[in-house]
Amino acid sequence: MFINPISLLIPPGTSLASGAGTILLSISAPTAGLPGHADPVAPILLVLVLIAIGAALGGKAMRWVGQPAVLGELLVGMLIANIGYALHEPILTVIREGETISQIVTLALQNALTLPEAVHQILPPGNNTERLAAALAGPMAPVAVSVYSFVDLLSRIAVIVLLFLVGLETDIGEMKKVGWPSFLVAMVGVVAPFLLGLGAMALLMPEAPLQKDIFIGAILTATSVGITARVFRDLRQAHRTEARIILGAAVIDDVLGLLILAVVSALVVTGTISLVSISWITLKAVVFLVGSISVGLWLAPRLVRRIARLKIENLKLLFGLGFAFVLAWLANLSGLATIIGAFAAGLILESFFDKELEGHSLRDLLSPIESLIVPVFFVLMGTQVKLETFADPKVTLIAVALTVAAIAGKLVAGLGCSPKLDRLSVGIGMMPRGEVGLIFAGIGKGLGVVSDAVFSAVVIMVMVTTLLTPPLLKITLARSRPAA
Amino acid sequence: MFINPISLLIPPGTSLASGAGTILLSISAPTAGLPGHADPVAPILLVLVLIAIGAALGGKAMRWVGQPAVLGELLVGMLIANIGYALHEPILTVIREGETISQIVTLALQNALTLPEAVHQILPPGNNTERLAAALAGPMAPVAVSVYSFVDLLSRIAVIVLLFLVGLETDIGEMKKVGWPSFLVAMVGVVAPFLLGLGAMALLMPEAPLQKDIFIGAILTATSVGITARVFRDLRQAHRTEARIILGAAVIDDVLGLLILAVVSALVVTGTISLVSISWITLKAVVFLVGSISVGLWLAPRLVRRIARLKIENLKLLFGLGFAFVLAWLANLSGLATIIGAFAAGLILESFFDKELEGHSLRDLLSPIESLIVPVFFVLMGTQVKLETFADPKVTLIAVALTVAAIAGKLVAGLGCSPKLDRLSVGIGMMPRGEVGLIFAGIGKGLGVVSDAVFSAVVIMVMVTTLLTPPLLKITLARSRPAA
Repeated sequence: MFINPISLLIPPGTSLASGAGTILLSISAPTAGLPGHADPVAPILLVLVLIAIGAALGGKAMRWVGQPAVLGELLVGMLIANIGYALHEPILTVIREGETISQIVTLALQNALTLPEAVHQILPPGNNTERLAAALAGPMAPVAVSVYSFVDLLSRIAVIVLLFLVGLETDIGEMKKVGWPSFLVAMVGVVAPFLLGLGAMALLMPEAPLQKDIFIGAILTATSVGITARVFRDLRQAHRTEARIILGAAVIDDVLGLLILAVVSALVVTGTISLVSISWITLKAVVFLVGSISVGLWLAPRLVRRIARLKIENLKLLFGLGFAFVLAWLANLSGLATIIGAFAAGLILESFFDKELEGHSLRDLLSPIESLIVPVFFVLMGTQVKLETFADPKVTLIAVALTVAAIAGKLVAGLGCSPKLDRLSVGIGMMPRGEVGLIFAGIGKGLGVVSDAVFSAVVIMVMVTTLLTPPLLKITLARSRPAA
Repeated sequence: MFINPISLLIPPGTSLASGAGTILLSISAPTAGLPGHADPVAPILLVLVLIAIGAALGGKAMRWVGQPAVLGELLVGMLIANIGYALHEPILTVIREGETISQIVTLALQNALTLPEAVHQILPPGNNTERLAAALAGPMAPVAVSVYSFVDLLSRIAVIVLLFLVGLETDIGEMKKVGWPSFLVAMVGVVAPFLLGLGAMALLMPEAPLQKDIFIGAILTATSVGITARVFRDLRQAHRTEARIILGAAVIDDVLGLLILAVVSALVVTGTISLVSISWITLKAVVFLVGSISVGLWLAPRLVRRIARLKIENLKLLFGLGFAFVLAWLANLSGLATIIGAFAAGLILESFFDKELEGHSLRDLLSPIESLIVPVFFVLMGTQVKLETFADPKVTLIAVALTVAAIAGKLVAGLGCSPKLDRLSVGIGMMPRGEVGLIFAGIGKGLGVVSDAVFSAVVIMVMVTTLLTPPLLKITLARSRPAA
């Protein structure tokens, strides 16, 4: 193990003597270099504390005006990141870019580029690109990348914990009862936005080929259930039938989304559809869902009873989270979202876990962890709302059309459930697109069927549907009486 | 926000049509590429579960043979990483390198190199270097780097939480009582290993210049208190006077270590010592220690009382951890280790926090978090024990001399406290060098006064003192009666 921190501080070719200044400098300002106790976790500690303070104050302020706390977390993230960007603050400029940063770093490492060179290869020329390249050229770049990467991964674990908790509070028998309405909501919620998006694009850009319109229609079919699940928790309405229908529909939507992506990508690239690959994708997703739940319901109690004899400290928390992580990993392996696996893990353990093992309930044990890390996910989601995207009139026009199609399509989906339920809340709950819509749009961009203007419009659509969901759900849920 | 995952999958110059195979491939195996739901957190989930299972089994096995659980975690880490390395498993090969990976990545990004090129610039030619370069050349390299980086940062947060807990269980008045013996133990524990190390090197390498011997003596003065603190917790002896003396001595040792590093670096580079920079380093460290504790004891209760009125959910846990993180960050800013700041934060809150705020005690709230993440630190420390380093006879000879000097020097330090106490346990508790010794050795290597052979010997010395401490402390603490 050869540790050579000085070599990073002294440019190649510099003599040892002229490096002395660097060493003393770095000792007197240890965050700038490696010697002394410059712990790379130090800036992350500060960022986590700032996120926690921001989330607590934002959540508090929103509850004060009667809104769900999650809206405050989104808005605080949006404010901090856009102010930081305006002030040319490198760490916030990097965090605001979101997932693009991972792609820039990977490209730079694989093709032996500097970070600014990789920025210019991935992003189109423009003011935003120059500003990001400048942030990634400065001395703070390694710190900024390391902070972004850690906070991003922590936030992904956070939303896995959130959906695991939602699963732990959901009775699997009750879920089965809503199977049919969930299926209808998911199907309508895929078909309606697809047709509306396709129609809107055909009207706005009549000269574009049909396969472009099809791809953009497909982007609008996504559902990202994290926000909705959190709003139901914030408003203490997670027990409602509407919440279960939305969760079930989101699971089905995740499978449908995989298929749609495969179909439209194949259509664009080859003009045909491979039935073998489509069947394989469907098979893997369905095998995971049916298999994990049926095997899990049989295996998990037996496993727990055996392990319980080992008398491992904190077994309940360790086994619970470990089970959720393994199912999240398996879901990802079969092409589904990690949160779908975490939700399935929660459904399975809900049926027996707290009866089998003594001590505090798993939900109580997870509660402090939830309160620490879940806000990180929503603050980070907020940081990725780029206010300057709303300034381009050409983009705004497409964005308005896509947003209207996206909202109307999912509101119609609410009609898939019984009129005795609050169909409007179900429709609104299906609205947020989140990262799923962005992944679709990114692939379309790579295939050349999504232009820069349409991509920016999709980003605006995702941001608007995300930010609108908490306040709208708050209004509709307060109006209607619980059905249970 | 321009997401273009496909561009990473299709090499430049490839036509869109030939990229189609890549897309379908990556959809059918989403972990290989970005499309679909390939969540970058998925491999980390699996690694965390494996670490948790390994730590639980290792800890259980050690307790079964009457040893502290931490020894099991170290050994499990050592076994898994060395087996993975033997089997050419890329992720474990990368994790085993430890902090060198961050330096390789930083160098590659700043100088536009590929990762294997950066490996060859940082590490000396050899079998180990080739194997690491191969692991970082393959398709798993981005995953391996991302897993290492996340787990490393998480483990740094873990040891901060551990020392914060130790502080929370330590009465500040009792700490003041052991001020004098702690100071004596720290001073003897610096002077004795320094002289022994210097003497050993003068005997083994009589031709080397004196400044080399001085630097190597300085490396032996470090103390890393994480392992010892954990062993006292594992054995439920954390209340003993010996534990407090060791903690106090470790804090003083951290300040002394900073000074020694500055003095010997200046001696080697310029041949003189700058009194101004030495005074500045001392001033910053002392101002932090005295300032944070005195201001903290005055400010923290007033702050808590004000914030308590806001009725923020989970305030106790959020404020407690946030306070620890801020003091860890401040400690790092003043040149000290983050864990020193976290320990100071614990000392401050111990005096009033649980009396001021109702609900579960902060220690109880932190307990599930401790059990989840603290083992990550010790398993990761274990993974960095490279068994093949013990094979080189030339290195082993120097290593034996340094290890004997390192152990004897710290055992003598135990004489700094009263003969009524268990002086042997105090000496053993001061033994582990941990990352502090490695940082010193790395700087010496950069300055050209630590050869590759001596560096490897230092690594062995660090590994041996770390692995010996838990079983030796177990024996001596069981023999002596608690003094309290």
